[in-house]
Parts: sequence; structure tokens; C-alpha cells
Amino acid sequence: MLSKSQINLLKSLQHKKFRREHGLFLVEGHKSIAEFINSAYQIEAVYHTNAFSPKVLKLSQKINLCEISVTDLEKISSLKTPQEVIVLLKIPQWPVLKHEQLKGKFSLVLDGIQDPGNLGTIIRIADWFGIENIICSDDTVDVYNPKVVQACMGSLSRVKVHYTSLIGLLGQIKLPIFGALLDGEDIYNTNFGSDGLVVMGNEGNGMRPEIQKLVNKAVTIPRIGGAESLNVAIATALFCSEITRK
Amino acid sequence: MLSKSQINLLKSLQHKKFRREHGLFLVEGHKSIAEFINSAYQIEAVYHTNAFSPKVLKLSQKINLCEISVTDLEKISSLKTPQEVIVLLKIPQWPVLKHEQLKGKFSLVLDGIQDPGNLGTIIRIADWFGIENIICSDDTVDVYNPKVVQACMGSLSRVKVHYTSLIGLLGQIKLPIFGALLDGEDIYNTNFGSDGLVVMGNEGNGMRPEIQKLVNKAVTIPRIGGAESLNVAIATALFCSEITRK
Repeated sequence: MLSKSQINLLKSLQHKKFRREHGLFLVEGHKSIAEFINSAYQIEAVYHTNAFSPKVLKLSQKINLCEISVTDLEKISSLKTPQEVIVLLKIPQWPVLKHEQLKGKFSLVLDGIQDPGNLGTIIRIADWFGIENIICSDDTVDVYNPKVVQACMGSLSRVKVHYTSLIGLLGQIKLPIFGALLDGEDIYNTNFGSDGLVVMGNEGNGMRPEIQKLVNKAVTIPRIGGAESLNVAIATALFCSEITRK
Repeated sequence: MLSKSQINLLKSLQHKKFRREHGLFLVEGHKSIAEFINSAYQIEAVYHTNAFSPKVLKLSQKINLCEISVTDLEKISSLKTPQEVIVLLKIPQWPVLKHEQLKGKFSLVLDGIQDPGNLGTIIRIADWFGIENIICSDDTVDVYNPKVVQACMGSLSRVKVHYTSLIGLLGQIKLPIFGALLDGEDIYNTNFGSDGLVVMGNEGNGMRPEIQKLVNKAVTIPRIGGAESLNVAIATALFCSEITRK
């Protein structure tokens, strides 16, 4: 059973303001839930209907299990057809990124990505290519937005997504900064070396000029045909492929 | 002004059955419309409100222009917030694909792609990489579905999308057939040569076994991290990048 105030709190987590205020977010979908359960994320509660047996989650931690009605599940879910279980998790506080954590590897930097599906897909791509850190400008869509969590398909349980002022970070970090830009070096001829940051810009407006100034090397995916642009998640995948290929 | 039966016909084009019956489909969005206007597609009519001047379309052909009310536009549109113009186009009948049209280049083959957004994104990717032909199994989502047309962002005006029985086609074509499969050769070590077909499978179930049998070379995108799978549009982009890179 959920009280009215509990339902209101859980419903409020569909909005960034309340997620940040409470430091909590929700995960739906069996596959995603299973991946978060086996991760370093702290689970606050598992809400499930009587159609669901929490045993299938193979919980090793002592977790607050709460059987709720289908009606309550529908109230707190962000899905049109909710599954039988929703998990409440604590938003992790990643330590401030320093040079030491970023050197020797590649990280992605996102300047103002707005579409939840794009961010989710980028996180899944980063997870596929073994990229541990994604650094987002403060105006990038919130990673704990239910649509982003949904599109991640569990990859968020492995990839750390940080929010910061990019100007501050890019100005300090002593690593090569590659930027996906027009009129740059052909991506297929670029020597990416062994570590660095790869900056991707906003869907419509691209990268802000002040961020472009901090890029050491502009890199371009050459166009052969007629399409005006490539979706930012597609472009990110092509960069991840090039930086990780042997 | 539109008659009730005209409205019903245009509304019916949201369903594949009626699109195929009438041989017609609708395009919305200024950018997409501009690209179709400048293509080989045959335009049947331009429906616009008085807020829109057809002059901006720079029509060279003699086209049936029809000013309609905002209410009628909302009735025939598949968008929540329709723009001021919708174009009615004839579904092209591409000639049956033969070896001659496919040799010397790469084409994509889609086995049962179901998500309209994925098909639209794949068409945009093909357009970026200069791939002229996409061959779909008959059960692939219909390319003239409004959501697919929307996701294509005009690229459908340049890329030919064919529907056919893949078994028939793949059995006849004398070109290398590469398949995106698990446990295949590493995509980064694969010599794709100068022409061939690249087969991508369904989002959830992958490629049907009978299609797999017709593949000459299984090719795999190696996974470095923890994600269970890559979205099919992302995988298609990585294949397109590898087959077209110099």
C-alpha cells in the first residue's frame, strides 16, 4: 500500500526539479531493473504488484519491498502500459572529475543534447564501446528523465554521466580535445592517440562557439551522399568506433 | 476546400492498406517537402492554409495547389501540431532489382525492421553515405508510414526503398552478401571489396535463419563494454562507415 503523499512523491519524480530535490529516480522495465540491481546504484525500494515475484530479481542486498495495487502502479509509472515492477533508486553523486580519472582513456562530452532518446542511445553506445564517462553541459537533458532511463536499456547502470560547466572542465583538463565539427580533419585520417575527450554538439545548433574554441582538433565525418546531417547519436557511434578500433 | 470524401481519403493514408490501394502518401514538414519537390517523386497536390505561400516551394511543375482550412489540415495531418502545408505524392514503382543495378556498389538489406524511427534513421544514414538502394523484406515496416517519412527528414527523396521476398532476391544475386551477425569476422578486419549487400536483422529477433543461410560472410561489431546490444540503426551506420571508407 502506498499513502497519498508517497504516490505524490513518486509521481513528482517525473520532473527534474523534484528528482534533484529528493535525490531519487525511478527505473521501469525488467531488463533495466535487473541491470541496476546488479550495479553500484543504491536501491531505495522495489514497488511491485502481486503479479510479480521479487525473487526473480535475485536481490542480495536487504531491500525495501513494497507490494502495491495495479492502480497505484499506473499512477507512479511514466509508461502507457507499465510492467509489474518499478524500482526507486538514489541518484549517485559522482566525485568531481579530475585529470587522473580521464587520462589513458576516451570520454564523451555532450554540449546541450536535448532529446531524451538521443542521450539514452548515446549512453548505450558508450557502454558498448567501453567508455566509462560521459560529461554533459548543465543544459543537457537530465539523464534521470524517465525517457532517457528507458532508452538506455540498463547501460546507465555502468556508464557514469556527469553534469558540469564544460568551459571550466575543458579549460583545465590537459588531454586532447576532439570536436565533431564541420570542416575539420577527415575522421578516417585522424590519429586519435590513446586518450582524450570527444565533444558532440546540440542536435539543431551544434556546438556553442565558446566550446568550439576549447577544442584542439576539429574532426569531420565525410559525407558522400545528399543528407544534410547525421543524427548526433549516429555521429557519436562513428566517433566511438574510430577511437576504439585497433 | 476539401470535401468530406477527400478528407476521408487523405486521412486513410495513415494506414498502409489504403496507401497501397491508392498508391499515395503524405509528406509534412517544410524541409522534407522542399526535398521531395526537388526530386523525381510525382506530386499530386499541395494542401496549405492561408498562412502559407506556395511560392516558397519554388514549384517548377504545374501542381494542384489547394488552400484548406486549419481545421481540415488538422484532420488530415498525422502530427500533433501540423505545419501549414501537407503534400500528397504518388508512391513510386521501382523496377524489379537486377544484378546490373546492384553491382559496383553497396546496398542495404533489411530483414523485418519494425520500428518506424529505426527505418527512417537508416534511410538518412544511407543517404549520408551515398547508398542508393535499400531492399526490405515484405514484413519490414512500410516506408510510407508517416512516422518513417518524418524520421527520414527528406532523405527518402533520394534513397530508393524496395520491398521484396529477400529469399528470392538473395538467392539470385551474384554479389557478396555480408550479414551483421554474432560470432562473425571482426568488422574492422573484414575486406568488404568494392560491392555487395549488407543484411541487417530485426530489432529483437535478429536475422531469420533462412536469410542467415544465404549470407556469404557473417560480420560482427566487436563489443568492448557491457551493453547487450547495439540499436540496429547504429549498427547500420557502423557498417556503412566501414564499407565506404577509403
